[in-house]
Amino acid sequence: MDEVKPTVRFNHLLGLKGLNKDAIIQILDTAVAFREVLERPIPKVPSLRGVTIANMFFEASTRTRISFELAEKRLSADTVNFSASGSSVSKGETMLDTVRNIEAMKVDVVVIRHYAQGAPHFLAERVDAAVVNAGDGQHEHPTQALLDMLTLRGEVENLEGCRVLILGDIAHSRVARSNIWGLKTVGAEVMICGPSTLMPREVETFNVAVTTDLDEALEWCDAVNVLRLQKERQRAGLIPSLREYQRMFGLTRKRLEKTGKDVIVMHPGPINRGVEIDSDVADSPASIILRQVTSGVAVRMAVLYLISGGDRNIE
Amino acid sequence: MDEVKPTVRFNHLLGLKGLNKDAIIQILDTAVAFREVLERPIPKVPSLRGVTIANMFFEASTRTRISFELAEKRLSADTVNFSASGSSVSKGETMLDTVRNIEAMKVDVVVIRHYAQGAPHFLAERVDAAVVNAGDGQHEHPTQALLDMLTLRGEVENLEGCRVLILGDIAHSRVARSNIWGLKTVGAEVMICGPSTLMPREVETFNVAVTTDLDEALEWCDAVNVLRLQKERQRAGLIPSLREYQRMFGLTRKRLEKTGKDVIVMHPGPINRGVEIDSDVADSPASIILRQVTSGVAVRMAVLYLISGGDRNIE
Amino acid sequence: MDEVKPTVRFNHLLGLKGLNKDAIIQILDTAVAFREVLERPIPKVPSLRGVTIANMFFEASTRTRISFELAEKRLSADTVNFSASGSSVSKGETMLDTVRNIEAMKVDVVVIRHYAQGAPHFLAERVDAAVVNAGDGQHEHPTQALLDMLTLRGEVENLEGCRVLILGDIAHSRVARSNIWGLKTVGAEVMICGPSTLMPREVETFNVAVTTDLDEALEWCDAVNVLRLQKERQRAGLIPSLREYQRMFGLTRKRLEKTGKDVIVMHPGPINRGVEIDSDVADSPASIILRQVTSGVAVRMAVLYLISGGDRNIE
Repeated sequence: MDEVKPTVRFNHLLGLKGLNKDAIIQILDTAVAFREVLERPIPKVPSLRGVTIANMFFEASTRTRISFELAEKRLSADTVNFSASGSSVSKGETMLDTVRNIEAMKVDVVVIRHYAQGAPHFLAERVDAAVVNAGDGQHEHPTQALLDMLTLRGEVENLEGCRVLILGDIAHSRVARSNIWGLKTVGAEVMICGPSTLMPREVETFNVAVTTDLDEALEWCDAVNVLRLQKERQRAGLIPSLREYQRMFGLTRKRLEKTGKDVIVMHPGPINRGVEIDSDVADSPASIILRQVTSGVAVRMAVLYLISGGDRNIE
Repeated sequence: MDEVKPTVRFNHLLGLKGLNKDAIIQILDTAVAFREVLERPIPKVPSLRGVTIANMFFEASTRTRISFELAEKRLSADTVNFSASGSSVSKGETMLDTVRNIEAMKVDVVVIRHYAQGAPHFLAERVDAAVVNAGDGQHEHPTQALLDMLTLRGEVENLEGCRVLILGDIAHSRVARSNIWGLKTVGAEVMICGPSTLMPREVETFNVAVTTDLDEALEWCDAVNVLRLQKERQRAGLIPSLREYQRMFGLTRKRLEKTGKDVIVMHPGPINRGVEIDSDVADSPASIILRQVTSGVAVRMAVLYLISGGDRNIE
Repeated sequence: MDEVKPTVRFNHLLGLKGLNKDAIIQILDTAVAFREVLERPIPKVPSLRGVTIANMFFEASTRTRISFELAEKRLSADTVNFSASGSSVSKGETMLDTVRNIEAMKVDVVVIRHYAQGAPHFLAERVDAAVVNAGDGQHEHPTQALLDMLTLRGEVENLEGCRVLILGDIAHSRVARSNIWGLKTVGAEVMICGPSTLMPREVETFNVAVTTDLDEALEWCDAVNVLRLQKERQRAGLIPSLREYQRMFGLTRKRLEKTGKDVIVMHPGPINRGVEIDSDVADSPASIILRQVTSGVAVRMAVLYLISGGDRNIE
């Protein structure tokens, strides 16, 4: 494997807003190198031997935690897992105290998922450990957006000028926000589509095209990233019914065929089959959903590697 | 250690029904080799270095999960644990999507426990990873039966012709079913004994002797495998009371002494002392219950080793 | 690193009551050696390679479990975690059966936290594995007291003659008990201070000074170890209100300044800021709270190392 010479140094990965193009491209290029590692008979490198990483999930998650954990193990890091349930959090300890304690055990990197927006940023200013945001409230989920971009780049060669539609519940989605910042930074064009009740108040600040007409949006895009619809939105009165949502914004084969072209289909998972996406779309050749999952491990390896100095061997 | 040359190849371990004698004997012989490894000062081999195994438990378990995890670590595999609580399962994702996602992270082997009968078989047809059934509904628990057979073979030298009594709640027991298939395949004789309300409807298809007379059954057998009685059975009206059950089907010292011979005592655990088995029986020299637990790690090492190709070094 | 030659052998660490001075000093000295290991670029030694350690937490814990887990990983041991929830405990298995089962899987060391006083002692008499008490009921928490002593010794050079005040809810605190036994054994002077409703009935058997006057106590001491106040004590009628407790026994900057000297401040965590300790005290230069956490990993490495024979290389 070619040696990766990091040119942009960063100490934390808190979000894609504000991260410059060189840094993003460097992460994606490093991830390509690690994706090759994952294809080897023994998909493991000693790069982070002796580095201790704490996965601190203050909010439940399966795929993101396991993806980070696998990335860490394949880099030969030592890992400890912390989850909010049954922990000192329920004893009234502040998050900062909890993390400072873990850090005092000589932990080098803290991967944090938190229900509160800005929690990783708050921490990064106060602890010495490197902080990786694994999702904070409805704010950012940078590694998800990076893996979306890596997977998409594998299909279109160049993200610059690529037209990406983000579809669904934009208001509550950290995946949408991180994708918007990241994609725009690397020069992609972004449109968002969803019911107006699920558009965020700050939508104009995104500086992207906005529509409620899915057919028009599909006509325009090269790729569509379908967001998961939380069923709670119905109870909150934000959508009339799942059925109605599905009729207006669900991605179906019929809609895609109407465009007369191949649209790449992405989804951050977990999928609500028959709600925001139909099974025959999710499982079609146009879908790169499982490739996104594979990219996830590679992207997280790249982030953890670069954040730890990026000057260790990738053997 | 002698090299183990696998002659029968298999890609999954879904159940003992249908597995042929050569395959079962090969697993048991390989397990004997690994049981020796467990006696070494450093009970670890590099056989599965670089192999990633996901333990996906959709149903709670202590001993089985820890036994698999230890087996994996002693083979130098990398492991990730998934449990249903707090996961995407509760977000409505299908089991197939959950497992496909984990597999897309380049996981080689999926060890699955699931409350639904047939879940591992359903998966094995749809994913590329090797699948090991760690218990599905009331259907099969093949590694438990294999460890029972390994432990018993350590006592009787030859399973062929050995008379094994399975005692208790046959209807709800995956342990009973896997033992019946496995024991019969290797030529042991099997009798089952329990209240008629706890006999499965398909009992004649088992092609084994059936009785409700425990004394008679103990008279006949060389070894008895006592099944755990779930206390829920009483609430369901299947037994009049625990006390009554204990009186009719509980294994006591008195009953065993009446046979005038040594009967080997097994139990898959966890034990309800004073219900299906008395403490002085469980802790007596005739009991090989804790040896079963030790065999469990060796059997699981053997299964994971063979399923991963069986052509790596057991150093 | 100098080689550590263990002179006192012990098979379990159940409590500090009854442990002699040489043994305690040996643990602290070994921990100093491991604290140096933690400062290395790769803070890991192969000392316990091939040793399997089960962390069995029958009571929830974050910091203690993670601290032990990190200690184990940095010694290159293999680890499995067991927690009471979702386990065979809820299926009615006795603790002894649970632990015997884990032990039968060839586990060398059992680290146990249990809500019942004496549980580790009960086990140690019945299993072959080495047992480390990670907290039992309101009885002992020996590794916590050892880390407190290690951290304090780093400040005062000699624990002999050092005056330590233990402040707060003595009655319900295993940390207090272990500190009292340990400190007295090595020759420190101990005073305890708290509301009389939170003094244990057996207080005279401690053979330490007792007071309810915090100002007087602070005047006397070199270091104060502030215990966490469980908010449940108020509901139980043991304190009139948190506010009242804070006014009488909360450690504030004002109180400390009144002494006109530097008092070292310790706390086992997790902290209730504004209740038993104020933020400006907890975060002041006099506070060695986070150093305690770091010491915790080193102390646990030392205990696990010594308990495993203490004759392996610390490379």
